[in-house]
Parts: sequence; C-alpha cells; structure tokens
Amino acid sequence: MASEGVKNVKLFGTWTSSYTHRVQLALKLKGVEFEYVEEDLSNKSPLLLKYNPVYKKVPVLLHGERAIAESIVILEYLDETWKEKPIMSQDPYERAIVRFWCRFADEKLGPAVGEVFRLTGEEQKAAVDRVRDTLKLVEAELSDGFFKGRRFFGGDEIGLLDIVMGCGSYWLWVFEEVAEAKLVDSEMFPRFHSWLRDFEEQNQVEEIIPATDRLLEYAKSLRQMILNQYKP
Amino acid sequence: MASEGVKNVKLFGTWTSSYTHRVQLALKLKGVEFEYVEEDLSNKSPLLLKYNPVYKKVPVLLHGERAIAESIVILEYLDETWKEKPIMSQDPYERAIVRFWCRFADEKLGPAVGEVFRLTGEEQKAAVDRVRDTLKLVEAELSDGFFKGRRFFGGDEIGLLDIVMGCGSYWLWVFEEVAEAKLVDSEMFPRFHSWLRDFEEQNQVEEIIPATDRLLEYAKSLRQMILNQYKP
Repeated sequence: MASEGVKNVKLFGTWTSSYTHRVQLALKLKGVEFEYVEEDLSNKSPLLLKYNPVYKKVPVLLHGERAIAESIVILEYLDETWKEKPIMSQDPYERAIVRFWCRFADEKLGPAVGEVFRLTGEEQKAAVDRVRDTLKLVEAELSDGFFKGRRFFGGDEIGLLDIVMGCGSYWLWVFEEVAEAKLVDSEMFPRFHSWLRDFEEQNQVEEIIPATDRLLEYAKSLRQMILNQYKP
Repeated sequence: MASEGVKNVKLFGTWTSSYTHRVQLALKLKGVEFEYVEEDLSNKSPLLLKYNPVYKKVPVLLHGERAIAESIVILEYLDETWKEKPIMSQDPYERAIVRFWCRFADEKLGPAVGEVFRLTGEEQKAAVDRVRDTLKLVEAELSDGFFKGRRFFGGDEIGLLDIVMGCGSYWLWVFEEVAEAKLVDSEMFPRFHSWLRDFEEQNQVEEIIPATDRLLEYAKSLRQMILNQYKP
C-alpha cells in the first residue's frame, strides 16, 4: 500500500509542531509517500478547519477522503493501515505499556517542560524540579522497568513511544538554552540522555527535526513574547 | 480465555469512579471473571501504590503479574487480550474515530462537567454553556457524523466509545440536581439524550452504575465540601 501515491495521503502541519513531526517521522519510517501542507496557524486554511472542526489544530492526516486528527490517534491509524515496518508490538501488554507512557508524555512531560519555558526566577526553578521528577520516572522505566536493556523503547528499532517521546524532546535542548535552565543532566538521567542522543542521530529523525538554530530563533522570540505579555 | 478464573484478573477501583465503571463494564460485556478490590482513596493500599506508582490512581487491572493503569489503556488491552465479544471494530478508520472521541470525552467533556459541579452563580452559568458547546459536538457526531443511524457508537451493541462516554455521563443527571443546572436538555440534544437513556437501560450497565440516591448523597456532600473550601 506504500505505493498508493502521494496524492492519496496529505499531512497538514506546521514546522514547529512536534506533533506534526511525529506523523512525518512515522510516515517516513513506514515509507508511505505523502504530500505535506504547511499551515499558518495565525491564518488557518479552510481545509484545516474542515478536516479538524473540533480542535482546529495540526496535525491532520487526510487519507483519501478520510480525515484523522490527534497525533497519537494518527500514529495508531498508520500502523493499522500500513502494516509493513510496524511501530507497535503485537503483544497486548507491550501495547498497553506503550500507550500508558504515550499518555504520560502528553499529559505530564510535555506540560512540565512548557512551564519551564513560560516562567522565570523561583517559579522556573520549581518548574525545573517538576520536569526532573517527571524525567526520573522515564529514566527508571528505561533503566530498570519494562524497557530495560533495549536500545529504543521499540527494541532495536524506533517504535511508537520513541516517536512520541522523541519528537518534542529536542525542545529540551532548545529550552535549556533559551530559558537558561538545565533539564536533561546526563549524570542524573544517563539512559534518557543517551536514548535521546541516539534517537536524534537516526537518519529519518535528522530529516524531520528542524535545524537547532531555526528552533532556537523561534523559541527565543516566542519566549520574549510570553515574558512581555506577563510583565507586571 | 474467559474461563481463566477469578484469581487471575483483579481490578482495583472505587465505587464512585466512572473510570473504574468503564473497566467493570468491559469485563462484564466480555464475560471475563475478575476479583474486584475496593480502594479507599484517602488511605491507598500498598498494592495500588505498587501497581500504579506513577499516578497512584484507580483503576488498575492486574492480569497475572501484569499491572495496567489508565482506563482507556486497560479497555484496549482487554479487547486485544480477550478477543471474543469485541468492543472495537477492526476497521482502522473507525478505530481512529473512536479513539479521537474517547480523548475528547476525557479532555473536554469530563473537565467541562466537573467545572459546573465546582462553581456557582455566573461562573457556573458560563460553565454550563461550555458543557453545552461540548455536547453540541457530540450531538452532531451522533445525528449527522460518523455514527449517524447507529443505535450505539459501537453499532447495535455497546462499544469502546459507549463505555467511555456512557460511564460518567450518568453524573450529568446527578450534577444537574446537585448543582441545580440543566445540562442534558432533550430538545437541545435529542440524540445524545436518547442514547444515554438507552445505554443506562442495558442490563450490564444497570449492574455497574451505583444507585442514583447513593451517587446523589455522595455528590451533595462533595459539593458542600468544595463550596466550604472556596468560601471567601
């Protein structure tokens, strides 16, 4: 089915969205050709509003006439539709563990990192501690939990949880510089640190993640905007 | 596999938790025998803390030595492990739509209803409007979207989305009375209203949902506690 052709699969996304990167990476890993449509979130296209009327957000995958929103929902759809090069194990327990940590990434890790980016001073220090508490749980899972001894969460190859946790984790480096706060200490989180470096060095990942200087420039101007907004 | 026996499957839950009810209902629908362990959330058992160290919350399913947390994760695990009487379609697109609305139920509908319960006066009126805006989207999906013409989201039988949306929706009636705010107007939301009544009348659902007077009593005392806490 990978040869269905570029016209049949469209992805609406934005270049700064790690949720978009997740879908781009999964499509690349599976070798599914697709047309990428860059959205301007300050001026959303009528097609984006049509295909994701509930959230009006990227990413949206259009497969023929079928529109699917929410990145993790899209990733599972891709794995169930293009069965070659699976990104999920067929074992129900491993699937459950992976889904549990995917939720954790979206509900705990992502928001915690976002807070570091938005805050300053003592409030930021507290937010850094919350990120570290969150990363400690991931570190434990990698070093002594279900994923112990694996190169990636998916095993020898990148899987769903690598995609979800990895696309977004590169913001950690960017945020460290912009917010001047150390988040991923290699001594504190040796397995997470080496996993993330390993993930980022994969060819398909390098093709997806925007260059660090572009991300930095974007993050700096965004942080300035946020800080100006909340000035007393 | 339904005959594996009661000792092999344990469910840790609490009687007021709609997330617990989801898992109870799915187990019943699938005919899986299980041992139910009622947790006291003000004094959590060592086993609950052991099996869900990340969130320390119910429900937790224990299948042999395997512990699984997060209700929707558990529901998918059940469906992939006990394949008889499926609660999910095998069609990848339908699965994606169902997963999308499950997230919506947890991220939008649930929190919106919770706000009505916690607030009073003008703030509560605004919260009621937000619940109605949310229900409008569900109503549209039932009356004119993917699920149009179906008795349940799952088709002729209750499926995953019915379980997720239905377990919890009975709080709507309770909250209406306790918070003195009309939420599920049958004229405003005819399909949702009739779907919920139909869902609640199913035998297995009736066996799971606590009696309305017990829920009411619990909700009244909880609301009083919340209102006392926030008194100026």
